[in-house]
Amino acid sequence: MLNDVSTTPRTRMTSDGRRRQLLGIGLRMLVERPISELSVDAVAAEAGISRGLLFHYFPTKGAYHDAVIGAAIRRVLRNTAPDEDAAPEEAVAQFVRRFLEQVDRRRDFYLALVFGTGARSLGGDRVESLRLVFARRLVDAIGAGEDAVPVAHAWAAYVEDRALQWSDPAALAGRVPIEQEVTHCVAALDALLAVGS
Amino acid sequence: MLNDVSTTPRTRMTSDGRRRQLLGIGLRMLVERPISELSVDAVAAEAGISRGLLFHYFPTKGAYHDAVIGAAIRRVLRNTAPDEDAAPEEAVAQFVRRFLEQVDRRRDFYLALVFGTGARSLGGDRVESLRLVFARRLVDAIGAGEDAVPVAHAWAAYVEDRALQWSDPAALAGRVPIEQEVTHCVAALDALLAVGS
Repeated sequence: MLNDVSTTPRTRMTSDGRRRQLLGIGLRMLVERPISELSVDAVAAEAGISRGLLFHYFPTKGAYHDAVIGAAIRRVLRNTAPDEDAAPEEAVAQFVRRFLEQVDRRRDFYLALVFGTGARSLGGDRVESLRLVFARRLVDAIGAGEDAVPVAHAWAAYVEDRALQWSDPAALAGRVPIEQEVTHCVAALDALLAVGS
Repeated sequence: MLNDVSTTPRTRMTSDGRRRQLLGIGLRMLVERPISELSVDAVAAEAGISRGLLFHYFPTKGAYHDAVIGAAIRRVLRNTAPDEDAAPEEAVAQFVRRFLEQVDRRRDFYLALVFGTGARSLGGDRVESLRLVFARRLVDAIGAGEDAVPVAHAWAAYVEDRALQWSDPAALAGRVPIEQEVTHCVAALDALLAVGS
C-alpha cells in the first residue's frame, strides 16, 4: 500500500518546501524593487496561496523580509566560500574569484542585497554581518590575528567596489581578465595588512 | 513706503525658500526610514502646505525623492572637500579627516544615504556618483593619472567602511584617535596605488 506522502496532491507541499518556495519568490522579487516595497500579497499570489497561509510561515511582513535577506546573505556566503583545504594565498584568491563571479553573474541581486534592503533601517546590520563574515573567513584562512579584522573588513568593501566596477555593463568591453582582477585584490590585501593599524 | 516683500506674511515663503524647506524636511526624515517610505503627505503636512503645492515644486514623488538624495549627496561633498590650496598629501588627509568627522557626526544620515535610498532601484547610480566624485577629487589632488581612478574609487569604499567601523557606537570606548585613523587611510591609498592595476 502506498504511504500518505505519495498520495498527496502535487499542489500540496511540505512545510519546508513551502517555506523555500516563498523565500525563492522573495529572492527573485528583491532584484526588481527595494525590500520595503516587497509585497506579501504579491508573493502569496505568485505562490498560489492565501495571505493568511503566508503568515502561517512568516508571522509578520517584517519577519518575511528578514528571512528573504537572510536567505540572500546565505546564498552569497555559500557561493563565495573558499575550499576548506586551500592554502592561505589560494584561499584569498578563491574568495576574490568567486566573489567577482557572483557579482558578475547576479549584479542586480547583489546591488539589491547591499543597497536596496533598507539596511539603514536595521542600522546597517546586514551589510555589516556580510563583511564581517568575509573578514573573519579571510583572517582565519591566512592565519592572521584578531587585530587584522578591521583591515580585512574594509578590504571586503574595497573588493566589493572593484567587483561592481569590473562587472559594470557599461565598461564590459574594456575590462581586464578576471585573473588580473583577482591578482590585484589579493595584492591589495597584503599591501593593506602591511600598512598596520 | 514699504515694498511688497516686507508685507508678506511670515507663512509666505519665496519659491527658493519653500524648496529648501521641503528638502530640509526630507533630509531629516531620510534618517528615520528608507527613501521609498518617505511620504510626500507627511512632508507637506510638516511644511504646513497642501500636497498639491508640494507637487508644484516637485512634479512627482520620484522627483522629490531624487531631489532629497541629490541634496544629501551635495551636503556630504561640501562637508568633505579638501581646501583648494592644500598640498597633495594634506588634501588626502583633509578629505579623510572631514569624511570621518561627517560620518561620526551624522552616522545615521550617512547610512541612510548609502544603504537606505533604494540606490539599487537606480542601478546603484547614487553611490557610484558619490564615490566617483571622491575618486576624481583625490586623483586631481595628488596629480595622478586617469588610470588611478579605479583604485581611488575602491579606496573610497575602503575609507567608508573604516569610517563606519570607527564611528560604530558599540566600539566607541576603544577607538583610536582620529589622527591615527587618518594616517592609516592616507597610507592605505599610497599602498593601493603602488599595487598597480
